[in-house]
Amino acid sequence: MLNFDEPRYLGIQAGAVGLAARIRSVVQDRLDAGAKNIVFMGAGGVGTLMEPAADLLRTRSTLPVHTIMPAEVVVQGSVHVGPDSLVIMPSLSGTTGESVEALAWCKERGATVVTLVGHGDTPLAEQADVSLVNFAADDTSCESFYLQSLLVALAVMEARGELAAQSFDDVVQQLQLLPSLLVEAKRAFEPRAAAFAQRIKDEPYHIITGAGSTWPEAFYYGMCILEEMQWIRTRPVHASDFFHGTLELVEQGVSVWIFKGEDSSRPLTERVEKFAPQYTDEVWVLDTADVDLPGVSQETRSLVSPVLLAALLERLSSHLEVLRDHPLTTRRYYKRVAY
Amino acid sequence: MLNFDEPRYLGIQAGAVGLAARIRSVVQDRLDAGAKNIVFMGAGGVGTLMEPAADLLRTRSTLPVHTIMPAEVVVQGSVHVGPDSLVIMPSLSGTTGESVEALAWCKERGATVVTLVGHGDTPLAEQADVSLVNFAADDTSCESFYLQSLLVALAVMEARGELAAQSFDDVVQQLQLLPSLLVEAKRAFEPRAAAFAQRIKDEPYHIITGAGSTWPEAFYYGMCILEEMQWIRTRPVHASDFFHGTLELVEQGVSVWIFKGEDSSRPLTERVEKFAPQYTDEVWVLDTADVDLPGVSQETRSLVSPVLLAALLERLSSHLEVLRDHPLTTRRYYKRVAY
Repeated sequence: MLNFDEPRYLGIQAGAVGLAARIRSVVQDRLDAGAKNIVFMGAGGVGTLMEPAADLLRTRSTLPVHTIMPAEVVVQGSVHVGPDSLVIMPSLSGTTGESVEALAWCKERGATVVTLVGHGDTPLAEQADVSLVNFAADDTSCESFYLQSLLVALAVMEARGELAAQSFDDVVQQLQLLPSLLVEAKRAFEPRAAAFAQRIKDEPYHIITGAGSTWPEAFYYGMCILEEMQWIRTRPVHASDFFHGTLELVEQGVSVWIFKGEDSSRPLTERVEKFAPQYTDEVWVLDTADVDLPGVSQETRSLVSPVLLAALLERLSSHLEVLRDHPLTTRRYYKRVAY
Repeated sequence: MLNFDEPRYLGIQAGAVGLAARIRSVVQDRLDAGAKNIVFMGAGGVGTLMEPAADLLRTRSTLPVHTIMPAEVVVQGSVHVGPDSLVIMPSLSGTTGESVEALAWCKERGATVVTLVGHGDTPLAEQADVSLVNFAADDTSCESFYLQSLLVALAVMEARGELAAQSFDDVVQQLQLLPSLLVEAKRAFEPRAAAFAQRIKDEPYHIITGAGSTWPEAFYYGMCILEEMQWIRTRPVHASDFFHGTLELVEQGVSVWIFKGEDSSRPLTERVEKFAPQYTDEVWVLDTADVDLPGVSQETRSLVSPVLLAALLERLSSHLEVLRDHPLTTRRYYKRVAY
């Protein structure tokens, strides 16, 4: 595979799954100690990567869950963050300025803050109540953050007796199979990634849609990969919202990407899949159901749909940066100029 | 003012404010009866118009608040919607298919559903537990829906003793001044609207940002006006997220719109205002603080920032449709083709 370090990737994803026992124990401890809500608080893309887990809790758990932007909480405040809050704060670098400020804000209010970071010797690792460190890099962190936040959500639901279909241990056992299955999925997808990158390398604009757990990946891939790392314009739009405005932009030649997952919102993406090809030839459907995952149950597949998408899309990014002669690490502004 | 029916506008906005007493009594009754959460459930743009109210509750009230898309709740479900839920369901037409389905879904689960509609003889009016009817049209409904949902939020906070600075009656008294003040604001803004429409009429793409209560208006104006009604590409992005990806698209000639309001998130929009003009000349700042509102307190101004923005932006739309020879009512697909 093009520019792919397999052992490194396997290590990072196995590292994320390997945090299962610690995540379970931290969550159980906080709930035993009376935590009354859980707050996911990540800046920008990494905040988005918490959304599938937050959404799982929102639809299936009665524990109040909040997703709050670090930059907003510091200026707006929130009556929900206090001594009975468990705050989950992700940051790959461990240094994101807004999150460092928000962590201090949460601590002042007595909240317990658990950080998910890529590096231990950083402010977000050192100033947290509990710091869960798993090294990752930009190109490999989506999957690992999705997995870690999923484990948080499952641990909450286990502690509250809200897991129905499968036990926490059952899911973890299947997640342990995932790193090598993801590598196989990437390998199988590589020719499609190369061909699609070739086809779209000069395309200046993409509408990207998803629903349920695939919507955050649509949002993330648009904003954090195509916009930030390739300077390509995107319009991430939820598959439900798509029909309330953005659909009018569709005409011949307009690129529409549809991310299909295997959770209950799949029919919402299928509505777009039925509509868009009638009006443009430039429709790309990326469907997790095409990925072979022996040993993984349908229920677990529905939980890891965004992980699968991220794994496949990384292959696309890898080809795009080469074909477009635009390294994924090049920035005009981010962390280069002050704001 | 161009294509503006002043008495009609005044009637619609006064009608929204005139619902204050009924909204207060419905909300009080439901909370007295033991409602344990409130759920805003609107499809597409009108769902977005509930966001400032939901956000006010999220930051200042301890009543659990949820915003759920009708299309999603029907397929995904939600453990939160049940006999103890007060569901607020807005729909201008009263006929939105996804909302009709979601209403039935909510009723089956025993929730109390209050609909906010523009027409009484419609499924969403007739099938609701309580239907609050205020006629409006596409070009005038933003303000009225913002106002009605604000009244819902204030009624919740009053009932729970969570209103600090001003009483419900105080705010309503000021809101009664608003319809004619909004007309004056439009009149004062008219020359700027005309000039700006002239300047951007051929511009194919705008990044539109806001924070706090102005973020939903950025999202709404991009998706429901420029995309749906003018077929112009937009990238609505929260002012915090802007710095985590979308900023890399900014270069000379790229249009960036910044919606500034008067709530506590104002500093987040000011960060974009400081950044963007260094890299592109095409920055447009629309600031509610420029609007004269005699008799309205600073606290109330902060609550109605999105209402002010919507009132001003309607003037821009009105000039755009004429200059671009593209009526705001023309659609390629919406309600013309099945999906």
